Amino acid sequence: MSTATSNPTRSSTKGHSSVVHIEDDWYIICRSGYLTGKPRSIELMGTPLVIFRAKNGQAGALLDRCPHRNAPLSLGTVRGDVLQCAYHGWRFDVSGTCRYVAGAGSDHIMKACHATAYPVREQQGFVWVFGTPRVEPDREPFLFPFVSEPGYTTVCRELQVEASLHAVAENALDVPHTAYLHGGLFRSTNKQTREIEVVISRYGDRVEAEYVGESAPTGLAGRILAPRGGPVSHVDRFILPSITQVEYKIGSETHLCVTVALTPVYDFITKLFAAVSFRLPIPGWMVVPVLRPLFLRIFEQDAEILKRQTETIKRFGGEQFASTSADILGPHIYRLLKMAERGERSRSEKNPQIFKTQLLV
Amino acid sequence: MSTATSNPTRSSTKGHSSVVHIEDDWYIICRSGYLTGKPRSIELMGTPLVIFRAKNGQAGALLDRCPHRNAPLSLGTVRGDVLQCAYHGWRFDVSGTCRYVAGAGSDHIMKACHATAYPVREQQGFVWVFGTPRVEPDREPFLFPFVSEPGYTTVCRELQVEASLHAVAENALDVPHTAYLHGGLFRSTNKQTREIEVVISRYGDRVEAEYVGESAPTGLAGRILAPRGGPVSHVDRFILPSITQVEYKIGSETHLCVTVALTPVYDFITKLFAAVSFRLPIPGWMVVPVLRPLFLRIFEQDAEILKRQTETIKRFGGEQFASTSADILGPHIYRLLKMAERGERSRSEKNPQIFKTQLLV
Amino acid sequence: MSTATSNPTRSSTKGHSSVVHIEDDWYIICRSGYLTGKPRSIELMGTPLVIFRAKNGQAGALLDRCPHRNAPLSLGTVRGDVLQCAYHGWRFDVSGTCRYVAGAGSDHIMKACHATAYPVREQQGFVWVFGTPRVEPDREPFLFPFVSEPGYTTVCRELQVEASLHAVAENALDVPHTAYLHGGLFRSTNKQTREIEVVISRYGDRVEAEYVGESAPTGLAGRILAPRGGPVSHVDRFILPSITQVEYKIGSETHLCVTVALTPVYDFITKLFAAVSFRLPIPGWMVVPVLRPLFLRIFEQDAEILKRQTETIKRFGGEQFASTSADILGPHIYRLLKMAERGERSRSEKNPQIFKTQLLV
Repeated sequence: MSTATSNPTRSSTKGHSSVVHIEDDWYIICRSGYLTGKPRSIELMGTPLVIFRAKNGQAGALLDRCPHRNAPLSLGTVRGDVLQCAYHGWRFDVSGTCRYVAGAGSDHIMKACHATAYPVREQQGFVWVFGTPRVEPDREPFLFPFVSEPGYTTVCRELQVEASLHAVAENALDVPHTAYLHGGLFRSTNKQTREIEVVISRYGDRVEAEYVGESAPTGLAGRILAPRGGPVSHVDRFILPSITQVEYKIGSETHLCVTVALTPVYDFITKLFAAVSFRLPIPGWMVVPVLRPLFLRIFEQDAEILKRQTETIKRFGGEQFASTSADILGPHIYRLLKMAERGERSRSEKNPQIFKTQLLV
Repeated sequence: MSTATSNPTRSSTKGHSSVVHIEDDWYIICRSGYLTGKPRSIELMGTPLVIFRAKNGQAGALLDRCPHRNAPLSLGTVRGDVLQCAYHGWRFDVSGTCRYVAGAGSDHIMKACHATAYPVREQQGFVWVFGTPRVEPDREPFLFPFVSEPGYTTVCRELQVEASLHAVAENALDVPHTAYLHGGLFRSTNKQTREIEVVISRYGDRVEAEYVGESAPTGLAGRILAPRGGPVSHVDRFILPSITQVEYKIGSETHLCVTVALTPVYDFITKLFAAVSFRLPIPGWMVVPVLRPLFLRIFEQDAEILKRQTETIKRFGGEQFASTSADILGPHIYRLLKMAERGERSRSEKNPQIFKTQLLV
Repeated sequence: MSTATSNPTRSSTKGHSSVVHIEDDWYIICRSGYLTGKPRSIELMGTPLVIFRAKNGQAGALLDRCPHRNAPLSLGTVRGDVLQCAYHGWRFDVSGTCRYVAGAGSDHIMKACHATAYPVREQQGFVWVFGTPRVEPDREPFLFPFVSEPGYTTVCRELQVEASLHAVAENALDVPHTAYLHGGLFRSTNKQTREIEVVISRYGDRVEAEYVGESAPTGLAGRILAPRGGPVSHVDRFILPSITQVEYKIGSETHLCVTVALTPVYDFITKLFAAVSFRLPIPGWMVVPVLRPLFLRIFEQDAEILKRQTETIKRFGGEQFASTSADILGPHIYRLLKMAERGERSRSEKNPQIFKTQLLV
């Protein structure tokens, strides 16, 4: 029997696990400003990569291992359009091609001398890397909505959590925990519960839940976001491989959309790149200073419980979950992830499967 | 390729091991006073448990994992007679029964929603937990003798050692090491050795060694415990699953009984709940301040060598012991533990097996 | 998939590995002065040993585990010609023979009571241990040349690196990395490269590379070692099981020989015992204060890149190397090590295999 450790990078579990590896899709690796002349060491699904920006502005992502003697390329130096290894001076361009071998003539550059390169895209200020090296991707990265739409303010944040991608996605789109874990912040347990209807639409590459007849949010967040109240439209959404979206419309003036792109760093370490876009009755610059500490507090509570959940799963050697009707999206997300991992997702299904259920809120 | 590591928490050994798991018996989990309104996380044989005291005073011990999403229940809160999970607010009573699922109606409480409960007993100020969940134990916990007998003083202590239950039990009942490891404290090597007879009686659930013709203990401990000397009766005893007892009678006035209940926390971490009961020619309150530092020093020396022994066993991937006639009780304890692990102990054998041997002291 | 950890003692890799275990040969375990009355704990190829010097001056090396209850013998005490275990007082001489068992008569000393002893030699101020216990070695340890030759100054150093023996040996005898990793110190990249011839001679137990037509070394080291220049003779040499040698003759006055005996502590921890012997146009005592910081700086750079190389190999679960003609000795060293591990080395081959190649320097 093994003793428990809390090493958050230990990833193997013996029992059941919601960990998936979807390698044929895009993940945000960093924000554009992070990529300067200095090579950076990062991880994607447990694979060490070096990312760097060549003098010509192009971003490159290579396996962080020199093909010569396996020194980490992230210790190297960008020289013009190549990354030069710190140990023996071998040089590689953003495509991974070896361009120089010290001590040997250039006719000694064999196939084994090239580095392993991953597809890279830069858009909306984010650097995306494809999960499979040496291929031409047949899809493009997700585009954040509302980011450049007039009347909208967008605040971006980058965070990291010690939990699997599935656990983070389920948490981000779960309603019942908000009254307990975040009690008082935007829902509370000190009132009568009532039943509302939830309509779940499952497409080939996404699932969304529409909450019908929800009251305007109470608590502090509610008072800030929709001071005048009004009819509420609330949709939660998960899009493959790793996008969560919470969208609120309250009355005609308030529109809030929190989009989070999740990056699986290790099996149980997930990065969150969040874009909070909103249009409110009051100017965005008045709201941001109030909302920021509120969101951070909520995030801290989620990060802490997710970390403790992960520790417990590891201590017990796997997951053992019991789900009820109140687990609205988690099981659907799990099913989508597993299908995508097996390569069975259908890109654009027109007619979703519809499920209806009730939730006590 | 070699696999040596020196990580002291690594518990699996490839080779031979004296580690046993006796799951159908009772172990002290904490002292009663430790159990307040706050749930506590503890481990028994590597299994994480949450223990808590409900408002009605009852103690509960559940697997420290919410059946819903595997958050640790020890992060939760006691509310009346239930423990409420910190994540989604599920509620469990001391029997493990799920009493509330937030967001779903109470008719959604399925069998999989219940927590796993362990039998609990409280007696003599200790909380005992049975090593198997969801059963009705067919035996009761051990009762400490002399604790409430008139004329006796009892001092309790709780300690923890990085060693297997077997290694700790053998150490607690071993005579020869005292002259070396604790040299000068209650035995010494600076004198002639002489041979004494040892009578070992092995019962179905215990083994005891009677040392015949032993001199009164010398060293500091001896001078305090029996200043006037007198005929010595010394019996060492091991009782399944994990009780060690050292009993000394010297003359007509001195009676000392050190009873230790061992709790296997992990394979190589053992807790000791010790009750030192004594009746002496001088009042107990005069002796305690002198004996305490002496016992602590002896314990520190034992804890250190046991830890280093454990490290060495792990480094070599298992035990390789050589025993001689001087290892009076260790091999018998091992045999009892292994029998009990296989479920083969006989509760109350009337006629013990008798072994006789000599020891040079 | 497990993530990388930087625990330098973790030794298993799943993929290809240059790690070898040559157990039928000698390794330096420490310098003679380190071995005093106090027993010392050391490791050889992952095996914990205790080394001690008996009162009669003899050095002993035993498995660091008491055969009785597996306490580490390195916690014990030297008493005359025996090492006494700290736990139960068992005593062992340098041959591993058990000489005393406390509590039992001396006729109770069985075969299982003896400790496991390794052959030991002391010469030139170093203590060597043979990699196999309980045998009579059929070869003797390596002798450092020039150490006691008149006109030569020798400086010794002991260092430790987190890398395999093969990686350290290849690094010590590699030329191309010096211009990059140690740029400016004794070779530089800021000049035209030119091609020189390399003659590689491979014997049954060694391989050497002679660099023909090399210029006198430039950079700071060159200016100190050979201020007047002259014809250069440069030979790099690897001798089984673990000796590296770099020998420079410049003109008639300068002779430098850096001999390093490598000791495999763990698979990825290697100790270096270096003897730098030289004869120069200027007195040795003038050179030592200048050369010491230079050598230390070079060593630090090598130690750092080797550690990072090791980390990367572990993160990827094994090595994946690409070699070119510029890797002069590394592949030959690997072949010799693997042959020796299989017990297939031939001791004294007269006629070496000759390989010729070019190197751009």
